[in-house]
Amino acid sequence: MCAPSLMSEVQRELSRRHFLGAVGVSVAAAIVPQEEARAQDKPVRLPKGFRDIYDLTHTLSPRTPVYPAFKPIQIIDRFSYERDGFYCKELVVIEHTGTHMDAPIHFIKGAASADRIPVERFFAPLAVISIKARAAKDADAGVTVDDIMAWEKRYGRLPRGAFVAMDSGWDARIVDSGKFINADAKGALHFPGLSGDAAKFLAQERDIVGVGVDTVSLDRGVAQSPVAHLTLLGAGKYGIELMANLGAVPPSGATVIIGGPKHLGATGGQVRVYAVM
Amino acid sequence: MCAPSLMSEVQRELSRRHFLGAVGVSVAAAIVPQEEARAQDKPVRLPKGFRDIYDLTHTLSPRTPVYPAFKPIQIIDRFSYERDGFYCKELVVIEHTGTHMDAPIHFIKGAASADRIPVERFFAPLAVISIKARAAKDADAGVTVDDIMAWEKRYGRLPRGAFVAMDSGWDARIVDSGKFINADAKGALHFPGLSGDAAKFLAQERDIVGVGVDTVSLDRGVAQSPVAHLTLLGAGKYGIELMANLGAVPPSGATVIIGGPKHLGATGGQVRVYAVM
Repeated sequence: MCAPSLMSEVQRELSRRHFLGAVGVSVAAAIVPQEEARAQDKPVRLPKGFRDIYDLTHTLSPRTPVYPAFKPIQIIDRFSYERDGFYCKELVVIEHTGTHMDAPIHFIKGAASADRIPVERFFAPLAVISIKARAAKDADAGVTVDDIMAWEKRYGRLPRGAFVAMDSGWDARIVDSGKFINADAKGALHFPGLSGDAAKFLAQERDIVGVGVDTVSLDRGVAQSPVAHLTLLGAGKYGIELMANLGAVPPSGATVIIGGPKHLGATGGQVRVYAVM
Repeated sequence: MCAPSLMSEVQRELSRRHFLGAVGVSVAAAIVPQEEARAQDKPVRLPKGFRDIYDLTHTLSPRTPVYPAFKPIQIIDRFSYERDGFYCKELVVIEHTGTHMDAPIHFIKGAASADRIPVERFFAPLAVISIKARAAKDADAGVTVDDIMAWEKRYGRLPRGAFVAMDSGWDARIVDSGKFINADAKGALHFPGLSGDAAKFLAQERDIVGVGVDTVSLDRGVAQSPVAHLTLLGAGKYGIELMANLGAVPPSGATVIIGGPKHLGATGGQVRVYAVM
């Protein structure tokens, strides 16, 4: 592996130099359009050994779908240019809205809060397991142990310290809260998540740091109990919910970087999530 | 440069392989102590080409020093294990508290909000300029153009796309809000920041993405007007205030990674900031 690795480093070095020549241009144009956008879905070039970045974070607004127990974020103007010389808002926000973390303490008394999770767990090999085709036909679909085995058959055993994310295709529904939460006439929710067996397999048979989903819950909407939450958080793993752009990232080979919440005793909180290649 | 660069990549590859053997151990011990801590000040080993991570983020609590115009964060229990089966809090939080971003729109009408800043600007070569010795004697000290020139004399011209941070030693005062804000009997504030000239130099003579300080403001406490804010944000740069651990990071050679806020129209907001080597 050493010689090919060196070759690829040489190529990377060249492309980095090329990047460094170009970055000045984009830095000069710092004022960007103001319209709301979906998470950036194209990688960009990076300096210093990074190549591509993907933004796996949704823009959080009062229109962002939330788990029915929670209320949407409030974003309130508190200071104005005219009165104060600057513009500043206040947020009233439930920790578990938007693209956010579930820390172990969210379900497990005495377990780690988000501010106490060691930072090295926020830089992890990313494995994306797609169940998009199945979820398009069945909103109650869940990641199964078979799905994990199929991923491993193709890409090799899940790396130690991996972060495993479900791509159910739900990302495309982000603009429509009704379709995202997908409640039926009786109020039952229908969106994909992890099966209890898959959660148990990841917690016990593999050595992961956390799991991610592109829906509002690690557990499927129809789950009768929060078995995926209890199993994974109970094993000290963290979760990331409402991830964006997972369909754009290579299923294997990227590194996820999680800008985790750091308020005191956080049971979770809004995160900025990147994947880099 | 090519041969030494290859050699250092070989060394990095070896240390990465060594790391991969060790990470399983730390991942297994997922539940960590609950006491409040200062930002992690030792780097940790990373997979996939990263070596060391530094956490440049303070834990945010109601005791965190804030700029006098703002009120501290409120962290309110909203859901409990006993009643709801899980624990969840609500945050009432001014965007410009804790380790946070100032987006251009914070001072400049129509400029970029934080959610609109291209992600590649959040991965940048980090330059740390220490004025610690001077600030220990004079709380009104500011980063000057001479300080920048002295840094460049030692480490070379500021790289294109750099993020430039002031280390004034204020980090050590984080536990004492009175000493951090340092108001005198007449209410004037005394803490370090960037001089107007240094801000102008960075905005006009160099090609940076943003600036950081370890105090609550880019401008010095005694500044009569927010000249550093207006100059830098007016040039489309972003600021990061209340950075932690800058004294622990190499003055040159690290890459800063900023987990920027992504709520709609953000004038700024809490960030998670890492430096990686």
